[in-house]
Amino acid sequence: MPASPVRKPDPAGALAIVAGTGELPRMLAEECRRRKRPYLVVIFEGIRLSWAEEHPVVPAVFEKPGKLFAALRRAGCTQVTFAGGVRRPRLSPMRFDLKAIRLAPLLFRAMRSGDDTALRIVSEIFEAEGLSIVGAHRLLSHLIARPGVLTRTQPSDADRQDAARAAAIVQALGQVDVGQGAVVAQGICLATESIQGTDAMLDFVARTGAPFRPDPEGANGVLLKAPKPGQDWRTDLPAIGPQTVAAAHAAGLAGVVVQAGGVLILGEAETIARADQLGLFLWAREP
Amino acid sequence: MPASPVRKPDPAGALAIVAGTGELPRMLAEECRRRKRPYLVVIFEGIRLSWAEEHPVVPAVFEKPGKLFAALRRAGCTQVTFAGGVRRPRLSPMRFDLKAIRLAPLLFRAMRSGDDTALRIVSEIFEAEGLSIVGAHRLLSHLIARPGVLTRTQPSDADRQDAARAAAIVQALGQVDVGQGAVVAQGICLATESIQGTDAMLDFVARTGAPFRPDPEGANGVLLKAPKPGQDWRTDLPAIGPQTVAAAHAAGLAGVVVQAGGVLILGEAETIARADQLGLFLWAREP
Repeated sequence: MPASPVRKPDPAGALAIVAGTGELPRMLAEECRRRKRPYLVVIFEGIRLSWAEEHPVVPAVFEKPGKLFAALRRAGCTQVTFAGGVRRPRLSPMRFDLKAIRLAPLLFRAMRSGDDTALRIVSEIFEAEGLSIVGAHRLLSHLIARPGVLTRTQPSDADRQDAARAAAIVQALGQVDVGQGAVVAQGICLATESIQGTDAMLDFVARTGAPFRPDPEGANGVLLKAPKPGQDWRTDLPAIGPQTVAAAHAAGLAGVVVQAGGVLILGEAETIARADQLGLFLWAREP
Repeated sequence: MPASPVRKPDPAGALAIVAGTGELPRMLAEECRRRKRPYLVVIFEGIRLSWAEEHPVVPAVFEKPGKLFAALRRAGCTQVTFAGGVRRPRLSPMRFDLKAIRLAPLLFRAMRSGDDTALRIVSEIFEAEGLSIVGAHRLLSHLIARPGVLTRTQPSDADRQDAARAAAIVQALGQVDVGQGAVVAQGICLATESIQGTDAMLDFVARTGAPFRPDPEGANGVLLKAPKPGQDWRTDLPAIGPQTVAAAHAAGLAGVVVQAGGVLILGEAETIARADQLGLFLWAREP
C-alpha cells in the first residue's frame, strides 16, 4: 500500500519582511511584488521608510509582539525575513502586551547581547510562532557577490595585501561577535566596524585616517566587508551599495573589497558605475 | 684557580629616551634627573615636545640612523627606551645616510607592519648597535596599575560585565596586532581602538555612541585598556592619565578599566582625583 502523500508547507505563503533602514528591505518587497508572492512589510515604531507607502505595511511596536504575530497569522505569513539596519529599541515594560510579558526574559537578554545572539533570540521567538526564518540572501541570491574584480580599476598588489590583513582583522573581530568590516591602508588598521555601522566607520576614517598612512604616495587603503565567521546567514548578511562606494571614496580609499559569496551588492550595476566613475575598484575576494 | 671576575655592563650607563607624544617620555626624563642617571631625550623630526627644553635633547631624523647612533655612542648610552606615541614616518630615501641604506629593507618592512612587528624591528636595529632595550614599565614600575578600584565611585555589576566583554574584544583584536582598547556599553561594542589612539576612539564614541545604548537609563559603558596578548612589554605598554578620564567622561562613559599589572597610570593621584571629581570609576581589573 503506498504511503499517503505528505503535505508540504506551502512555500508560497506570505512573506513578512521585517524592515530596517537601507536598500535591502525595499529590494525584497519589490522582488515579492514582481514574483507575485504575497508579502507584508513590518515596520517597527521609530523607523521611517518613505518607499514603503507603495507596499502593504504592518506597523509594529517592540513591546507588543502578540499583536504583531496575530496580524501575521491573519495575513497567512509562513516565512519571515529580517532586512536592513534596526537600532536596538528602548523597551518600555509599561507597554508590554501579554506575549511580551511572557517573553520578557528573552527580550531583555536579546537587548544586552551581541548582534548575532540578539538576532538568534529574535529568530527563535518568531520560529516559536510557526514562522520560518528565511535569509534575504536566499530571496535575493542573485545579489550575492560573485568572485572577481567588477570594475575597470584593478586592485594593486598593495591593495591585495591590505585586503588580506583587513580580512584577518574582521575574522578576529567576528569571533567576539563585533562588526563586519575594517579599513586597512598600507598594513595599518585605520578602523574597525562597531554597531554604528559602515558609514560611521568610513566617516571616522575620512576625518582621522589620512595622517596615519605611512607613505603619502602609497596605497590609499581598502574597506573590506565580510560576514562574521559562523554567523547565522539567515539574518544579518552584510550588504554594500552605491552609497558605500561613495563613502569609501570620501574616506580617501582605493577601493571596496567584499567577501565573494558572503556579501550582498545592492544595485550592482549602479554600484559598479559609481566606482568606475570615482576611480575605485570593487573586488569580490575569495576568502 | 678561581675564574677571573666577569665584567658586567654598567647598568648606570646613559639612557636614551626615544620620545613621542604624551606624558610618558616626560615622566621618564624627570625620573632620570631625580635619580641622577645620565640620559638623553631623542626627538625625531616632526615631533614637538614643549617640556623637553629643560632636558638634554638629541634631534634625530628617521632617514639618518647612523648619525643618531653616533650621537648616542658619544653620550655613553647603554640603554634605550621607547615612550609615547610616534606616528609612522614618511621616509624620504633621498635623505638616507649610509646606515639607513643598509637597513632599508628592514625599515620599509617596519613601516608596513602592525605596531608590534614594527617595534620589534626597530628594537632589533637598536640592539644591533649594542644598546639594550628597556621598557618604560621597568623604569617606571611604580606607575603600573595595581589591582583594585581606585576611586570612590565603584563599578556596578553591569559595568563589570561590560568590562569583561571589552577585555575579550581587546584580546581578539590583539591577536591580529590591532589596538589596545575598546568601549562597551550594555554589552554593545561602541568602538575599538585603531592606530589613531584612545582619544580619537573616545571622540568617535562621544559623537556617535549614545543612541546605540539599548537602555538610556542603563549602564553608560566603559573604556577598557589592556596590553595586547603576547606583546613585547619592553616597548609599547598602554598608558592612561587624567586626560583619558576626562575624555571618557566626555564620551558619556561610567568609568575607565585598565588591566592590572599591564597598564601605566601616569599621574595616578591626579587621575584618581579627576575621576572622583567627574563621578567616574577607575578600576584596575585582574585579567
